[in-house]
Amino acid sequence: MNPEQLQQLLRGVQSGDVGIEEALTQLRLLPYEDIGFAKLDHHRWLRKGFPEVVLCRGKTVKQVVDIVEHLALAGSTVLATKATPEMSTAVQDVVPEARFYELPGMIVVNGVVDRKNPGFVLVVTAGTADIPVAEEAVVTSEVMGNRVERLYDVGVAGLHRLLDHKSLLLEANVIVAVAGMEGALASVISGMVGRPIMAVPTSVGYGASFEGLAALLGMLNTCAPGVAVVNIDNGFGAGYLASLINRQTKKKR
Amino acid sequence: MNPEQLQQLLRGVQSGDVGIEEALTQLRLLPYEDIGFAKLDHHRWLRKGFPEVVLCRGKTVKQVVDIVEHLALAGSTVLATKATPEMSTAVQDVVPEARFYELPGMIVVNGVVDRKNPGFVLVVTAGTADIPVAEEAVVTSEVMGNRVERLYDVGVAGLHRLLDHKSLLLEANVIVAVAGMEGALASVISGMVGRPIMAVPTSVGYGASFEGLAALLGMLNTCAPGVAVVNIDNGFGAGYLASLINRQTKKKR
Amino acid sequence: MNPEQLQQLLRGVQSGDVGIEEALTQLRLLPYEDIGFAKLDHHRWLRKGFPEVVLCRGKTVKQVVDIVEHLALAGSTVLATKATPEMSTAVQDVVPEARFYELPGMIVVNGVVDRKNPGFVLVVTAGTADIPVAEEAVVTSEVMGNRVERLYDVGVAGLHRLLDHKSLLLEANVIVAVAGMEGALASVISGMVGRPIMAVPTSVGYGASFEGLAALLGMLNTCAPGVAVVNIDNGFGAGYLASLINRQTKKKR
Amino acid sequence: MNPEQLQQLLRGVQSGDVGIEEALTQLRLLPYEDIGFAKLDHHRWLRKGFPEVVLCRGKTVKQVVDIVEHLALAGSTVLATKATPEMSTAVQDVVPEARFYELPGMIVVNGVVDRKNPGFVLVVTAGTADIPVAEEAVVTSEVMGNRVERLYDVGVAGLHRLLDHKSLLLEANVIVAVAGMEGALASVISGMVGRPIMAVPTSVGYGASFEGLAALLGMLNTCAPGVAVVNIDNGFGAGYLASLINRQTKKKR
Amino acid sequence: MNPEQLQQLLRGVQSGDVGIEEALTQLRLLPYEDIGFAKLDHHRWLRKGFPEVVLCRGKTVKQVVDIVEHLALAGSTVLATKATPEMSTAVQDVVPEARFYELPGMIVVNGVVDRKNPGFVLVVTAGTADIPVAEEAVVTSEVMGNRVERLYDVGVAGLHRLLDHKSLLLEANVIVAVAGMEGALASVISGMVGRPIMAVPTSVGYGASFEGLAALLGMLNTCAPGVAVVNIDNGFGAGYLASLINRQTKKKR
Amino acid sequence: MNPEQLQQLLRGVQSGDVGIEEALTQLRLLPYEDIGFAKLDHHRWLRKGFPEVVLCRGKTVKQVVDIVEHLALAGSTVLATKATPEMSTAVQDVVPEARFYELPGMIVVNGVVDRKNPGFVLVVTAGTADIPVAEEAVVTSEVMGNRVERLYDVGVAGLHRLLDHKSLLLEANVIVAVAGMEGALASVISGMVGRPIMAVPTSVGYGASFEGLAALLGMLNTCAPGVAVVNIDNGFGAGYLASLINRQTKKKR
Amino acid sequence: MNPEQLQQLLRGVQSGDVGIEEALTQLRLLPYEDIGFAKLDHHRWLRKGFPEVVLCRGKTVKQVVDIVEHLALAGSTVLATKATPEMSTAVQDVVPEARFYELPGMIVVNGVVDRKNPGFVLVVTAGTADIPVAEEAVVTSEVMGNRVERLYDVGVAGLHRLLDHKSLLLEANVIVAVAGMEGALASVISGMVGRPIMAVPTSVGYGASFEGLAALLGMLNTCAPGVAVVNIDNGFGAGYLASLINRQTKKKR
Amino acid sequence: MNPEQLQQLLRGVQSGDVGIEEALTQLRLLPYEDIGFAKLDHHRWLRKGFPEVVLCRGKTVKQVVDIVEHLALAGSTVLATKATPEMSTAVQDVVPEARFYELPGMIVVNGVVDRKNPGFVLVVTAGTADIPVAEEAVVTSEVMGNRVERLYDVGVAGLHRLLDHKSLLLEANVIVAVAGMEGALASVISGMVGRPIMAVPTSVGYGASFEGLAALLGMLNTCAPGVAVVNIDNGFGAGYLASLINRQTKKKR
Repeated sequence: MNPEQLQQLLRGVQSGDVGIEEALTQLRLLPYEDIGFAKLDHHRWLRKGFPEVVLCRGKTVKQVVDIVEHLALAGSTVLATKATPEMSTAVQDVVPEARFYELPGMIVVNGVVDRKNPGFVLVVTAGTADIPVAEEAVVTSEVMGNRVERLYDVGVAGLHRLLDHKSLLLEANVIVAVAGMEGALASVISGMVGRPIMAVPTSVGYGASFEGLAALLGMLNTCAPGVAVVNIDNGFGAGYLASLINRQTKKKR
Repeated sequence: MNPEQLQQLLRGVQSGDVGIEEALTQLRLLPYEDIGFAKLDHHRWLRKGFPEVVLCRGKTVKQVVDIVEHLALAGSTVLATKATPEMSTAVQDVVPEARFYELPGMIVVNGVVDRKNPGFVLVVTAGTADIPVAEEAVVTSEVMGNRVERLYDVGVAGLHRLLDHKSLLLEANVIVAVAGMEGALASVISGMVGRPIMAVPTSVGYGASFEGLAALLGMLNTCAPGVAVVNIDNGFGAGYLASLINRQTKKKR
Repeated sequence: MNPEQLQQLLRGVQSGDVGIEEALTQLRLLPYEDIGFAKLDHHRWLRKGFPEVVLCRGKTVKQVVDIVEHLALAGSTVLATKATPEMSTAVQDVVPEARFYELPGMIVVNGVVDRKNPGFVLVVTAGTADIPVAEEAVVTSEVMGNRVERLYDVGVAGLHRLLDHKSLLLEANVIVAVAGMEGALASVISGMVGRPIMAVPTSVGYGASFEGLAALLGMLNTCAPGVAVVNIDNGFGAGYLASLINRQTKKKR
Repeated sequence: MNPEQLQQLLRGVQSGDVGIEEALTQLRLLPYEDIGFAKLDHHRWLRKGFPEVVLCRGKTVKQVVDIVEHLALAGSTVLATKATPEMSTAVQDVVPEARFYELPGMIVVNGVVDRKNPGFVLVVTAGTADIPVAEEAVVTSEVMGNRVERLYDVGVAGLHRLLDHKSLLLEANVIVAVAGMEGALASVISGMVGRPIMAVPTSVGYGASFEGLAALLGMLNTCAPGVAVVNIDNGFGAGYLASLINRQTKKKR
Repeated sequence: MNPEQLQQLLRGVQSGDVGIEEALTQLRLLPYEDIGFAKLDHHRWLRKGFPEVVLCRGKTVKQVVDIVEHLALAGSTVLATKATPEMSTAVQDVVPEARFYELPGMIVVNGVVDRKNPGFVLVVTAGTADIPVAEEAVVTSEVMGNRVERLYDVGVAGLHRLLDHKSLLLEANVIVAVAGMEGALASVISGMVGRPIMAVPTSVGYGASFEGLAALLGMLNTCAPGVAVVNIDNGFGAGYLASLINRQTKKKR
Repeated sequence: MNPEQLQQLLRGVQSGDVGIEEALTQLRLLPYEDIGFAKLDHHRWLRKGFPEVVLCRGKTVKQVVDIVEHLALAGSTVLATKATPEMSTAVQDVVPEARFYELPGMIVVNGVVDRKNPGFVLVVTAGTADIPVAEEAVVTSEVMGNRVERLYDVGVAGLHRLLDHKSLLLEANVIVAVAGMEGALASVISGMVGRPIMAVPTSVGYGASFEGLAALLGMLNTCAPGVAVVNIDNGFGAGYLASLINRQTKKKR
Repeated sequence: MNPEQLQQLLRGVQSGDVGIEEALTQLRLLPYEDIGFAKLDHHRWLRKGFPEVVLCRGKTVKQVVDIVEHLALAGSTVLATKATPEMSTAVQDVVPEARFYELPGMIVVNGVVDRKNPGFVLVVTAGTADIPVAEEAVVTSEVMGNRVERLYDVGVAGLHRLLDHKSLLLEANVIVAVAGMEGALASVISGMVGRPIMAVPTSVGYGASFEGLAALLGMLNTCAPGVAVVNIDNGFGAGYLASLINRQTKKKR
Repeated sequence: MNPEQLQQLLRGVQSGDVGIEEALTQLRLLPYEDIGFAKLDHHRWLRKGFPEVVLCRGKTVKQVVDIVEHLALAGSTVLATKATPEMSTAVQDVVPEARFYELPGMIVVNGVVDRKNPGFVLVVTAGTADIPVAEEAVVTSEVMGNRVERLYDVGVAGLHRLLDHKSLLLEANVIVAVAGMEGALASVISGMVGRPIMAVPTSVGYGASFEGLAALLGMLNTCAPGVAVVNIDNGFGAGYLASLINRQTKKKR
């Protein structure tokens, strides 16, 4: 149940179109729904501005299907991350309108379409191997109703590729910087512009990258302020934050 | 040289009050000033919206004094972090208007006074030992022109202290969450409200806190999206980001 | 040989029904039985109140079958953890009464049935992916003769789900808190009630969760006293301790 | 305000001895008291069975004095850990009845005296260097109203010292095992008796003990179930848990 | 070429049975043989008392076959560790007398048979999952000409199993202690007897055992002197050292 | 476009053979080419003396094919590392002249053939398992136009194998030292000769080698100056640096 | 009470010179003596061949004095390690014959003088900064009755210094190799001779030596078998083991 | 004894000016000089092109004085690193010509003066706090006979400061890049020029810089090839390598 559905219900009660009993039945779903192995938090949209998001990793296919189905039935936007193609197929059997984004492994139902904010989120990557994580940020921000621009493969090994797009960097309301290896991209962008940068270290690299630890530490120790960091490979987390910031940004800067 | 001084200079040239030669001399300082051991980045205010910030740790007292003096002479706002009382005294000998904040160890010259944005930054701590780091965020955000509210000692050991201030959490444009030990504060706040949260792990704790590592990892792995993390004890970094976000937030939400 | 069987044997000797030679033969098994690659500790039930438990991981299928068979023949309750379905099938070929719990991967023979203590153990999880580990705790506590209640998917991202079950938390004699990611669940529960909490960090999460290290460190650094921690994913260890505590708890508090 | 004081107050209201206004004034303190830099959680005694405990490390002397004074004025038992002699002296200037335990560095006011439970907590150490941490557990458990027995310097290098005290180990309701270096003490005790063991790794050792990490990992990986672990050097945490368990244990086992 | 073959060759030269040219040809192999991708160190037997040992992990099947073949042709004892069954089969195609030990994954050719030293090496394990590593030590010591005794599954969870074999522990010239999880076995044995103990941490365990790190740190921090440690899972290294010590030990102690 | 092609183009413009429009079209490729998911840095050859190198790990087969095809079409030397045989086959379908080096997993197109510098790079390994990483260095240096010599399997366990080749070590312009396990090879070579040594730690080893960490730390802490270190298993990085150094070394020393 | 004193006592009983009562009084001390904060293990000499050793670090001066005094009164050899000069002075006030070794910080009373074994322990260091740790091994071995030879400052940066002393290396019964930084010394010696090598990593070095971790990992991963490792800076442990091995080595090899 | 002194000696023998006996006496010093606690490697200049360097950290003042004195008496260039002012004063008492560089803490005697190579080493720092480490590289390279240029405080937070000095970067034969925090400087320079870059991570930073670990990992994982790394804060090591490379670089490129 999203905020608009709730408003409509209450207006129905006000006008007498909806009986008290019926309203109560519908509202009973509100706080959360207990489906045995999970307690779906239907109240989250009201509280946080976006419904509960499903992390598929660690769940069985059946659990994912059940959760997505219940959320979709409640009219909620559904965003499921780190999903496998097998999970997607199983979900689409019961929720045919579910859409699967293969690169980041995401299942989406009822994505937001109207983008009220004219500003945009810019998602930047250092290399092409960082793209799956970046796309997780892109899809998340788009589903949450934002315009998103991509600027991929502009790592510091060829700095002119980044310098060439300085105007794009300056126009964005918020920047998601996705990089593995040494993760220097975030510092370099932060040295160039005064916009909030949500940095995502990726596990791209090998050896002493220690599955993304090198990029994580690098981004946390940035010498250029204006950078905050989310978990390794957590494109979703950065896209979510970027959406929060973009949505509350005023039009004209 | 801040943006307004630059604008004034150019108007002077336009009107003929300032000769070309004189303007050139003044502008020569613009990109950066080489004072031997340091290259002061006077251009940063234009580029990033705030001048270069001085991290005092690792510098000699004399270097700090020299850098602060040159920045102050150039008319810049000066923000120096992790400063000792000894550094402060030495700075005030040559820059008497410098103000020292003892708790976070900060030196400030020419802080911004007008707060154009009616919204505010909320700085929250889990315990009282986290306050010095939190004050670094507070001073940074205030010097950058923001209204800041404090909510201290509301850690999860006594959750009702936090729940009691829910309206304050909901009204803030951006929240800085400062916590050591297990750092659960950030997750709990993020579960309650839909505002961007800049989390600062602190080195408060002992044993397996490993100087803040436990809180850092906890905050990075938050199960509630909407949290991004800065370096351990880096109140400045969180205050800086909070200011960027607050300044670009539209009035009415 | 369990305590009751031992008592019966000694009574038989007392009454003359059992000859000395026969008793000696039966008692020879008591300290431990050497089956070549393993020394089965039949004495453990007397010493610790529960027989030896078999950790299947790292053992061959044949070793697991041999150990379970010998323990079952000796009349002992058998609890085997981290078992694969293949191990279970092989065990059931020779010990048909063995029961397999698929989710936690446990094999049980001769589980305890009478639950003398009216109190109960409460097993709580932050998410649904934590359930396999939680079920290991549940089965362990139940096999050891305790009543167990479940409270699943009540992580701090939706705190009201936890607050709604406060009475359940208050009634439990001991709480097993199972959580991955940042593991904040243990601290939050401990802030709410004054019961001993056995915390189990899980390897649920990715990136900087470092296979459960983040949750482990978080739980060790809890700001709310009353929490002790077992190994990552060690639901068995927590269920075992919870049983020890529950069994010795007096009825009415 | 402790539970008995609260009961008395309510009886006073019932009998008319206490006016509504006066009761309200006293109850206003209940949830927590805001003293500027800290929010004292006076409600904790009711909620958790023991009042808020003060971790002195990371606080200024003045903050410690203020907090202890306010808690003592409210009639609460005060337990302050990791305190320096300087803090103790300053506290005793304003709260003369405060008692200082030098070895563990603890300040106590209004400790509980009646020990309702006939059972006892047993605190064991591997060596003499572990004693300060062990004493923190002892004082905590005693202040919380328990009988405590000590068994010090019985590490595995001389196993007979431990075996000699087997009856003491068997009689205890709960055992606190304190050890540094490899921390094997907890496993060895757990192999001997079936009582819950709260293990405290200490930072005693050098080199690859990594400030207690070796003992911590060793205790978490115990091969003998029945052991749970608290933070390195956290004698308080173990004493607190031991008290919870001991208090709810029935007399006759 | 082993020491005896060398002696024989020199005697042949002395007696005139072997011509200088022929002797030179044979001796040319002595320092090392270059087979392209490897330089076989035929000199090692003379220098260290045992020929070069082949670590198969990281080598291709073909490389293993070529190296074993060349060493065997030179009359050397061949010991190859961490070998797969596939490697063994391929080796036996060209060196039919090669023997494969499946549990530890070892290939042996021309093992030493006469055991000149009447003393023995004792290999002890904490559990049954430690046996493959222990067998690597057993085979190594036996191939190097030592008598070896096994004492398996006597971990500290059931201390009486170990205490029962005290005489075996006292009679050994050197003890190899193999244990995973917390690795307390080495400390406990060292507290009981005054013989050199070569400890082998194993990767047996899960979670915070971190692939054997917990056992490694535990053994390095033993509180009972007389323990030295080799790499995780390195049964070969411990068996090798035990052999060096056993061979130089005098008969009667 | 390589430097010679560029020169030719400019000469064509000078002579009038190439029209301005045509030259512009060709030069448009210069800075970088945007192929959607990647921005190929054609300018790198001019800037750094060698074109962009493709790290295949983390990229899809299709991405690798597209990138190699575009670089090859632009006339560039193509060097692709950490490639699988499947990638190689797919590349050769569209770029038949591509050559695959199986051991290090490298794809090469248009390798440099003339070796202007008479000096050479020496690549040394401790064992045979280090050869794949060493070959990555060899191929990289050769493709960049250097003479390369190999010295394999000369680890410190048989020091005479290394001492025997001292003259080779002395003659090299630069040495690439490749070793896993404890990585002592680099220190020992550096103690012998005064040439720059580029050390490559490998993930060869097990247990406490922690995937190459032991060798990495060992090489960084060398007691013999003259050693610098690249990432674990990064044969390419060392071969690249060795080429830079060798190419700028004067003929006669 | 050492073994000879015990024998004498028993002979006295046999001959009638010592009464039963008197013998009992003396034997009562045998197992261990409880001095309040410590349980002195007088039985250890019989069990392990050497009395209890005192690690001073972590103990108060008073505790050290009390323990040394009680051990000395019992006629035991006393070995106290990691002692400060202040501890030594306090000990000498009550036990004037105590000797202090300043470099390693050791207190010795009643050291063994007759050296029955003609063989010797060789203690080798890589540099001069490793000497304090090496001297701990020297004093320990000497006090335990061994001949010890020193070979200092022969690290791999100047290999000829080590090669020059090859005969000394070959003659030793056991070698203690002490090195910080990369710790390559142990591997290099092990490649040269076939004697057991007890390796001691030291905390000598800086940066990525991480307080001795680099040397520790290097020594554990030695490519030349025959090396076992003790804790960082644990010269005592290596000297103890070397003594055990040297004492049981037969005269002529 | 430096190479020229050796040549002169041999010419004296050739001409008959120096007697055989006298020459022998002088040459006896050549391999190394044993001064009790140290073995001075006088042969190193011939072998490696530069004499032994003294790391003062971990040595006593007296040891430093003795070593420097002996090396100076032998006519060698002396370079002592990580020295304290106290060490310097003590050295100058016996070697008055010794020069002390306070910032990096270095003692130099008989530094090389003629700089045969016209090329130069460029030492770059990210910030002013990195200067002490950078100066260690500068002094080392200068003492070894190189021209050195400095470019300080050009970190990526103000990229234009670095871009402004591109020609200096292009002209250097080798670049030493010194940076703490995230260490991005090395990657960015390497993306700009094709010269070998010796990167020095520094311990500048706090929190998750973990004493330089973040910069170390960042530099090892550089996405721009051409970077090799030395130990944290090891300016000497980088200066030494830079000298080796610069000295062998041909004049005109």
